[in-house]
Amino acid sequence: MTQARLIEVETAILSKNDSYAEGNRRVLNALEVFTVNLVSSPGSGKTTLLCETIRRLGDVPLAVIEGDQQTANDAERIRATGARAVQINTGKGCHLDAHMVGHALDRLRLRQGSFLFIENVGNLVCPAAFDLGEDCKVAILSVTEGEDKPLKYPDMFTASRLAILNKTDLAPHCDVDLDLYAANLKRVNPDIEIIALSARTGEGMDRWIDWLQARRDAKRAV
Amino acid sequence: MTQARLIEVETAILSKNDSYAEGNRRVLNALEVFTVNLVSSPGSGKTTLLCETIRRLGDVPLAVIEGDQQTANDAERIRATGARAVQINTGKGCHLDAHMVGHALDRLRLRQGSFLFIENVGNLVCPAAFDLGEDCKVAILSVTEGEDKPLKYPDMFTASRLAILNKTDLAPHCDVDLDLYAANLKRVNPDIEIIALSARTGEGMDRWIDWLQARRDAKRAV
Repeated sequence: MTQARLIEVETAILSKNDSYAEGNRRVLNALEVFTVNLVSSPGSGKTTLLCETIRRLGDVPLAVIEGDQQTANDAERIRATGARAVQINTGKGCHLDAHMVGHALDRLRLRQGSFLFIENVGNLVCPAAFDLGEDCKVAILSVTEGEDKPLKYPDMFTASRLAILNKTDLAPHCDVDLDLYAANLKRVNPDIEIIALSARTGEGMDRWIDWLQARRDAKRAV
Repeated sequence: MTQARLIEVETAILSKNDSYAEGNRRVLNALEVFTVNLVSSPGSGKTTLLCETIRRLGDVPLAVIEGDQQTANDAERIRATGARAVQINTGKGCHLDAHMVGHALDRLRLRQGSFLFIENVGNLVCPAAFDLGEDCKVAILSVTEGEDKPLKYPDMFTASRLAILNKTDLAPHCDVDLDLYAANLKRVNPDIEIIALSARTGEGMDRWIDWLQARRDAKRAV
């Protein structure tokens, strides 16, 4: 298979994905649902952050789509908070695509003005290329991962509107420089917003909750 | 594009990769080079582990192939130890393939009986499917990532001969259960070997160095 043929195949896959994503976006906009696509490496703490976010958002309508290669563990953790969650298992697949998400939307019966959180497969590469119909991607980095990650995986941070530096409670134990994280994030995406927090201790969680509520209110006001 | 067509394309890519991998393996076997394909999430500490490994192996011939989407930072870190290193940038790509590695081999001029370390792109999904011609894959998990990772990304741990639980110095700070990590690893791959270590403090490094030397000696004795 030649390189040209491979690129042609890739373009065809992405173009088909984009048309499904547009369909999802029409549904989500009609419902005034503010939708966040959470992307990160495996083990950045997405599910713990999401459980704590749901707890703090309190009595607002929301739902979750969970993506993993295998297991329904994360959807079960989310359901234990009382929130509705659908698990998608991608099997060999390395990312969620808009077609899978469309089927999950059909099952979720979203209420108008909800939040929808899509927890993507843990992968700092492939999910960057796939629009799911979301309002924005939010990239989560554990501070244990190292300050060079934005430079080494620039596509993901270019595609994201917000970067969360999670597990700040571990920062004192691993010689990490939060200013260098921020500088490297801005180097690949000058417009990216940054919130440092610890889902475990609660430090910084207020800023994230405020960010979410402001974004959802702005969407409803349009 | 239909599902059948996609699978056909994927099979063609993997089959072409396998033939390049066989070519690499013939070269590496002829040179009695013990080759390790290091796979993990971004931020598991592969490069730090590799620098410390090189330091401890001392005066033995070795070389390194570094894979990243962008930057030559890791190859520079390796070269600072005195070892030879070639950087491969995959651009949009999410894994190294055997064709790229073949070109790197041509540039490395390996000495007989060397170690070759291939540091793959940080990604717990896609590199599992691509044979590079290595003797074995070694999967590295940072203990901060969570005990469920082997269950959620089973392909990678099924494909690996050894799992390294890295950053054990952070274990006391993040409520991690090393026995549960081991149990989950064995659940997806009963044959997998496990070494817990901290490249930062040196704890457990001796076992890893002994493992490498024994494997290389076994290969040379064949």
